Order: sequence, then structure tokens, then C-alpha cells
Amino acid sequence: MKDVIHIGILGLGVVGSGTVALLQQNRQIIERKVGARLNIRRIAVRDIHKRRPVEVDRSLLTSNPIEVLDDPEIDIVCELIGGVSPAKEYVLRALRNGKHIVTANKEMIAKEGHAIMEEAGRRQLDFQFEGSVAGGIPIIQPMKNALSGNAIQEIMGIVNGTTNYILTRMTLENADFAAVLREAQALGYAEADPSSDIEGFDAQYKLAILSSIAFTCRVSLQKVYVEGITHITRRDIECARELGYVIKLLAIGSRVGSDAIQARVHPALLPVNHPLASTNDVYNAIYLRGDSVGDVMFYGRGAGMMPTGSAVVGDIIDVCRNLLRGATGRTPCTCFDQREMLPMDTVETKYYLRMLVLDKPGVLAAIAGVLGENEVSIESVVQKATAHQQAEIIWVTHRVRESNMRAALKQIDALPVVASIENWLRVEE
Amino acid sequence: MKDVIHIGILGLGVVGSGTVALLQQNRQIIERKVGARLNIRRIAVRDIHKRRPVEVDRSLLTSNPIEVLDDPEIDIVCELIGGVSPAKEYVLRALRNGKHIVTANKEMIAKEGHAIMEEAGRRQLDFQFEGSVAGGIPIIQPMKNALSGNAIQEIMGIVNGTTNYILTRMTLENADFAAVLREAQALGYAEADPSSDIEGFDAQYKLAILSSIAFTCRVSLQKVYVEGITHITRRDIECARELGYVIKLLAIGSRVGSDAIQARVHPALLPVNHPLASTNDVYNAIYLRGDSVGDVMFYGRGAGMMPTGSAVVGDIIDVCRNLLRGATGRTPCTCFDQREMLPMDTVETKYYLRMLVLDKPGVLAAIAGVLGENEVSIESVVQKATAHQQAEIIWVTHRVRESNMRAALKQIDALPVVASIENWLRVEE
Repeated sequence: MKDVIHIGILGLGVVGSGTVALLQQNRQIIERKVGARLNIRRIAVRDIHKRRPVEVDRSLLTSNPIEVLDDPEIDIVCELIGGVSPAKEYVLRALRNGKHIVTANKEMIAKEGHAIMEEAGRRQLDFQFEGSVAGGIPIIQPMKNALSGNAIQEIMGIVNGTTNYILTRMTLENADFAAVLREAQALGYAEADPSSDIEGFDAQYKLAILSSIAFTCRVSLQKVYVEGITHITRRDIECARELGYVIKLLAIGSRVGSDAIQARVHPALLPVNHPLASTNDVYNAIYLRGDSVGDVMFYGRGAGMMPTGSAVVGDIIDVCRNLLRGATGRTPCTCFDQREMLPMDTVETKYYLRMLVLDKPGVLAAIAGVLGENEVSIESVVQKATAHQQAEIIWVTHRVRESNMRAALKQIDALPVVASIENWLRVEE
Repeated sequence: MKDVIHIGILGLGVVGSGTVALLQQNRQIIERKVGARLNIRRIAVRDIHKRRPVEVDRSLLTSNPIEVLDDPEIDIVCELIGGVSPAKEYVLRALRNGKHIVTANKEMIAKEGHAIMEEAGRRQLDFQFEGSVAGGIPIIQPMKNALSGNAIQEIMGIVNGTTNYILTRMTLENADFAAVLREAQALGYAEADPSSDIEGFDAQYKLAILSSIAFTCRVSLQKVYVEGITHITRRDIECARELGYVIKLLAIGSRVGSDAIQARVHPALLPVNHPLASTNDVYNAIYLRGDSVGDVMFYGRGAGMMPTGSAVVGDIIDVCRNLLRGATGRTPCTCFDQREMLPMDTVETKYYLRMLVLDKPGVLAAIAGVLGENEVSIESVVQKATAHQQAEIIWVTHRVRESNMRAALKQIDALPVVASIENWLRVEE
């Protein structure tokens, strides 16, 4: 049996530094668990002079990733640079050189996972990516192992810390989106260009990965519906609260019949007593329902140097155990099934709808009439007088197909008595 | 590579039936994930004529466990009969026959795990027991894999569904312990002899298992403090509610310094906004804190035929993957360390204390004096007049060592002005 396993690392940013720090700090217990010595042999970085949040021997650093990818001694390459290119090319080159891969790169997996997993599968190499979803929370390994006897019916998660922080602050401080976003940027919880988070793309990548494992099929990223949180106003959060809900950015994947799935990322109203509703600030939580296990929920820190480092190191340990027993490729890709991905129009859910109308007789009836014609039935409606002879009406519907809701909205928007549809959001239970 | 893996099962009660039902129901997807056919070859039961909640081919049943243990074709034995004896003897015999073990038997592992794991380790056989703690919730595999890079600092769980059901009902319905226990027995949530649950022993077994993995050391069951819920009254729950707490039966393991741990099971007051506080009815939740991952929580159904079956089948799949790759014994026992188990007297926590006293001047001062002499400082105190010239006083202390609290209680009990110490409970944050 090998007595040293050599690790090469690409990238020493937040996640790379967390990984190295943890390997240093818990070296003894990790090596005992693995049963071999772990040696960080080389770390490729863009700038070898940059200060890092972790102390590393300067001689390990190189600005040439080939020195990691082509080093014949290296067993495991940790790809922690992020983004699709050149990460994908690096990973493929490492695989062709017979190296096992640990990565936290959600975008690369969601967009190019297919090609990478095929290459790894052909060569019986490990390709592990626990850190790509929900930071340190174990979710991919549990789905692939402890829960793998289940047919998973649904997965629903709060998987983006930035938007959850923003929505939490808006809720607790009664603040506007723009103000909280600036605060989050100042605190380092949101990036200078926040679009990947606030437009929902980051959550979309993660949902594609989770759905693919949960439903044992390839998930085409383009067919994962995505809607961000930029249109959520303080007023919506206030109205939701009055109705007994909080607003969260949800990533939802569901099995529909035996050979179709739906996958969607959008803000939604959740009842305050829902298990996910109290997941606040930068915490993430993933709830799933399996045919035998029932409801399960996983909760923890969804990002950050040490939590994501924890996931990467967990994967490294797993690969080491396979390596030492000649069992790499032990848990290959499980995308066995072809499943149709149903478009958003076919989703059935409840809706929240807030509008400004002229404050005069017959208006409510006219709108209710349009809703009824489109088979949208009403669970509750509240009308409030506002200024300028206008009234605000807030509707919550029963479950209805999204296509019907959209048709109704189009007609309502065209009614002369309706000043504006202020917002409409899905309501999940 | 083998193309069929043969499974033998001991016991076809609740968990055995769930395991068989799940293997039947999801056979196709499980076999694709494993990459081989899974064959239930024999099931040993006490009474082959008894009706079971799952349909099985009568010819598979035998009343002779040796036909499972000694069958040379059988690769994996699932021990699902529970209890220490004869389960332990069966498991050891199966190991000596070269068979891998999957079990959900918490009592056997907590009491005899050492001997069994040594036997399995010597023979490089798998011994898996995800189902022994918290039913279908993945917790043992995540601690052994995804979280294994962490030094775990603390683990705190609600791991017994029966007591959690009873405390939840007492809380929501303002009901007495005895009445709710009867209701739980009628519903099948509590056994005819409920002592293992309500005295805390079931939780004690589970905590011993969790602590052993979390702190990489053997845990002596006798040194896990245990106190049940039979002394919790409706009045305590009411007082806790007024103070902003709920009462839960907690299993708590903590690292103390670098080479000691504490492990204790007892009811405690938890702030209503604590992540574990909303775990109600038969649900379980386990919260843990790792040095890199931070706080993580796992939540789900802690018992039942299909949830526990889910855990057993997850373990079977894991063993199958090892078997097919010649990698069994891949994740052996990790009890590397010797750690002192500190006695309950050394615990430092907050306390809730409810007493009846004579309603006359100077009483509060006398009791506060005794507390002060024992270094127990007070966070809050509420005194209420009751009937018969008595008053009820409810104290919440700051953190103090349990030995000090016990000394104070002894002195308070001896004060002539104190009619009775009605209850005292620990308060966790």
C-alpha cells in the first residue's frame, strides 16, 4: 500500500486557502483516518507573491499549472480556481494524466460535468465535488451513499448565501434591496459584480447538480428556470409577513410522474413555520423528500473559507481511501435515466399577486372575473386604500398551473381599472 | 467482478420489513447504482408463520439463524433483531464466516461495539450501522466521510422520537406526562414497557455511538450520564415557555481540552429560537460543531419502518460497492484516542430551578444567599404567590459547575423556609 499520497492544488483563493489550512491544522487525525501520509506537493497560483490567508512554504507555489497537472508524483488534483475555462481544460488534462479530481466548481460541473465525468468514468478515476453545493454541508455524499436506496421525490433548498443574507436583512431591518446589497458588498458577502448571486445563476448551477444526482439523470442547465431577487421590494416582504410568510430564494427540483422532472430557481413565499423558513443570513439549508426516508433536512454554512475547505478535505479523504484500496471510481456518475425537463409553464403552485387599482366600485369583481376565467381560484384577498384614489390588492391563489396564471396576469394588466401589477411571486408549502 | 451479491437478514420486524420492502420497491435503481444484482437469499425469523408488513416469498424464511450465518453464498448479513444477546453472538459468528455486517442495533454497538469492530477490523470486513442512530437521517456516514477532516467540538441531538413526541404533546396540549405517555402507547410511538425511551437509555446508546465517532475514542457507556423525562411536569413546561424556552431531551457530547470529553443525556431548556427547538413530534435532529465546518444540523424522521430501512439499504449499497472493488474494510473504526470521560459534576451550564417556599419576608434573600455562597449567580428570578401561604420561585442561573449547583441545592433543601424543590433542570444555549 502507498504510504504517501501527493496532492496538487490549483488556486489558493478562499477555498484553496481553507483546504490547505485544514490539511495543516488537522494533519494528524486526517492521516490516521486515511492510513497514509498526505503531502501537498505543489500549488499553482496566478501570482506567487500575493499575500494569502494561510501560511504556505513558498517553494510549493508555482505560477505554472502544468507543474501540477503533469507532475507524475501527484495523485489528486484539487481544482479550486472556479469558472469554466481554463478549469475544465485543466481538469481534463489531469484526468488524462491519471489523476483523481476534487473540485468545488459548481459552474464547471453544471455546464461541463458530462464530459468530465465521462472521462473520469472511462479511466476509473474519482471525480468528487461535495464543496460545489452548500459549502460544508454534507449533501452530495449523503445523496450518493446513505440515501441512495431512495427514489428522491423532491429537493428544495436555500443554496445561495448572498441572496439569503440580503433577504434576511430586508426582512429583519425593513430595508430596501439596494441598501442591503451595498451593505453585503461592504461586508464581503456580495461581490463587486453581484449578478451571479442576485440573478439566481449561482443557485441555478447548484440545483442542476443536486437534481442530476437526486433524479439520476443529466440536467440541461438551460432548462433550469431561473429568476433572481432584484424585483423583491420591502413592501412585498411586509405583505408576506402579514400573510404569515417569509420570502426566500428557493431552488426546487421535483420528479413529475415516472420520467419527467422540473427544476426552478426563484424567490417564493414560504410559511413561517416551514423547516426552511428560519434559515437566515449566510446559512444554507437543503430539504429533500425520499420515498422511504421521508423528509430530511441539512443545514449549515453554505460558503466560506473553512466550511468549503471542510467539504474539499472530506472529498480528499474519500479519494485517499479509494486510492489505498485500489477502489477508485468506486462511486461513478449515476445519470442513468433520460428524463424530460418540463418547462416553467407546466408548474403548478400557489401565487402571491400585488397590484394597484383604481379605488372604485366593481374593480375587485372585474379582476376576480379574469382570474376565474383562467381557472385561478382565490385563497385570500386583502384590499387596502392607498393615496391618489388608488387601492392596493394582495391576492393569494390556490394551486394553479403557471400558464393559467400568466394568461390571467396578461389580461389583468390590460384592464383599464388596474394601475399596475406591482409584483407576483410563487408561494410554496 | 461478482454479478450477484447475496444478502441474509436476521429479523423481519419493523426495520427488517422496511429493508426488504425498500430492496424490492427500488430494486432496479439500487442495482444500477451498485452495478450488480442484489439477492435476498435467506431471512431468519422467530416465527415463520407470523404476518409481516411486507410480502416475502415463504421459501426464503427460516427459523434457524445458522442457515443465514453459515450459508457460504451469503456476502452480507443484516442483523435487525436488536438487543445484545443473541445478536452479538450472531454477528461475531457471521464475521468469523467472512460476512460483512449491516446493523441498526444501537444497544449492541454501544455495549459490545469494541469487540465486534475489532473482529471486523482484523478480517478487513465491513461493519456498518447508519440505522442505529436517528433512523433515516444520514449522520454516521457524514461524520465518517464528508466531515472527517474536522475536529468535532460538540454534538447535540434530539435522538429519541418517543420522548420528543411526549414532550411535544405536553407542550402543545398542556398535558401531563402520564396522559401523553398513554396516548403515545396507544399510537404505537411508545412501547408497552417504555422505560428504555423515557429513562433515556435509548438516547444514551445513541450518544455513546455518536461521541465515539465524533471524538475518535472509545466511549464507556457507564460514563455517559443519563437522566430521563419522567420528572418533567406540565408546570415546568409552562414556566419554561414563559421564560422563552422549550424542554427537550438532549444528548450532548463535548470535547473538553485536548484529551477529555463529556457525554450526557438529560432533559434541558432550550431557547425557542435554537435550531433544535422546533424539532417536534417523532422527528430527530442532530446539531454538530466542527472546527472548520462550523455549525451543521441534520433533521428528519428518527425511526420507523421505511426511514430506518433507508439507512440499512444505504449501508448495504456502500458495502456492495466495497465488495465489488475488493475494498471492504475501507472505512474502519476510528477510535484512535484515549480520552478521559469527565463526570457530570464537572459540567458547566446554566440551571432552571423551581421551588415552593413560605411566603414571608427574607425568604428570597436566604435562598439567594445560599446560591451566592456556592458561586451560583442568578440570571433571573420570578416569584409568584400561590395558595396556602406559599410562593413559587423560579430561578435561572448563569453558567456554573454542576457540583456547585448540587451543593447549593442540598443546602437550600435543608432551609426551613423552603417547602420543596419542585424541579431543577439544565439550560442549554
